[in-house]
Amino acid sequence: MTGTLYLVGVGPGDPELLTLKAARILGTVPVISFPNKPRLNSTSFAIAKSHINPGAELLPADIPMKADPAPAQAAYDALAAKLDKLLSAGKNIAYLCEGDPLFYGSAIHLIGCLASGHNIEIVPGITSLSASAATICRPLASRSEVFKVLPATLGDKKLAIELTGADTVAIIKAGRHLPRVRVALERSGLMQSAVIVEHASTLNEKIIPLSKYQPDAAPYFSTILCHRSAGRWK
Amino acid sequence: MTGTLYLVGVGPGDPELLTLKAARILGTVPVISFPNKPRLNSTSFAIAKSHINPGAELLPADIPMKADPAPAQAAYDALAAKLDKLLSAGKNIAYLCEGDPLFYGSAIHLIGCLASGHNIEIVPGITSLSASAATICRPLASRSEVFKVLPATLGDKKLAIELTGADTVAIIKAGRHLPRVRVALERSGLMQSAVIVEHASTLNEKIIPLSKYQPDAAPYFSTILCHRSAGRWK
Repeated sequence: MTGTLYLVGVGPGDPELLTLKAARILGTVPVISFPNKPRLNSTSFAIAKSHINPGAELLPADIPMKADPAPAQAAYDALAAKLDKLLSAGKNIAYLCEGDPLFYGSAIHLIGCLASGHNIEIVPGITSLSASAATICRPLASRSEVFKVLPATLGDKKLAIELTGADTVAIIKAGRHLPRVRVALERSGLMQSAVIVEHASTLNEKIIPLSKYQPDAAPYFSTILCHRSAGRWK
Repeated sequence: MTGTLYLVGVGPGDPELLTLKAARILGTVPVISFPNKPRLNSTSFAIAKSHINPGAELLPADIPMKADPAPAQAAYDALAAKLDKLLSAGKNIAYLCEGDPLFYGSAIHLIGCLASGHNIEIVPGITSLSASAATICRPLASRSEVFKVLPATLGDKKLAIELTGADTVAIIKAGRHLPRVRVALERSGLMQSAVIVEHASTLNEKIIPLSKYQPDAAPYFSTILCHRSAGRWK
């Protein structure tokens, strides 16, 4: 009897935005693993901790988050070797993922490592996009609109092409790319509707029109939402 | 003291995929409203019913779902007039939305009707896209990929433009547009990776490669997921 690896989406930050399924699994599995950036507290663990079985074995994994994916992938390879042994011994394991595991989650790498030999079940989570839209009470998309998610790590040319004529757009991973994002949004006519939401659904949540946002870089937990027909929702 | 209107995302179908917040609100508000297509059972009510306060007043609303949005908007206008009176009398109300309220939800129309005079709070939900990706255990998007959601109601030209070179795409509202969608996916090289998921997360869930899917139309609750680099996830 081999165990099951659950990749559990813990949502955008508010511990009440976990699903009932996620809470049930976290309350019962004997091993909980999570990304623990070196020298930083784990965000996903902080979100989930009130739901975790108090007797569970905790298995934090140092996952370096850098532009170059190679160090994180090496860290996931090392973690996968540990999880493989526990799963083979029949233990069920939950690995915590911020937001939704399959939506730009780095733990996707674990699927490639472990899917051939083990049961993997994905527990979907609320994305930071849904939480950001909820807090500004504006649709992500409706009717026949095209909705695009654009990582700011795209090159200028690709960003410009995708923004031209776009209906509604979420820009993620803005970070230090924010000055380039501003230029691209101005040129595409989307700046007027652009809102940056920091730390959606948490006590640190901030909502600021991008045109009035002072910093030169956006925090890791932030999303920029643009909607060409935003005027309709005011 | 005016009441609050909660637009509550009830997720894709599995009642365990509601959030803890949604379950708490449904367990406590005195009025629950939901779309009740004429002569059909309400899907959102079926998903949510085990969480609903047994003493709550139920307020089903006949919302016609047609390609022309005008009849649905008229129905929402009539519903908004009823909700306005209840909110003004200080009652809190939850309106049930399949998936996430702000992600192609028709109840978005209620925000325009009621936001100026009342408190509205959005409770985000798991989208059918997240649930469909979870069931096929394949990323919606990762790293620097562009993710697009394309309603099949787009014209052929727009669909072709958006699919050209796209990394990863979800096609929604395929319905009777399925033959056009097939042609567009073949031309853009995305057919090989295309999977149709019907009724994700429910007992009626089906997963079928689109190239082997027989029907000429897709059911209302279905999503087509395409991923140009799908080979990596096999």
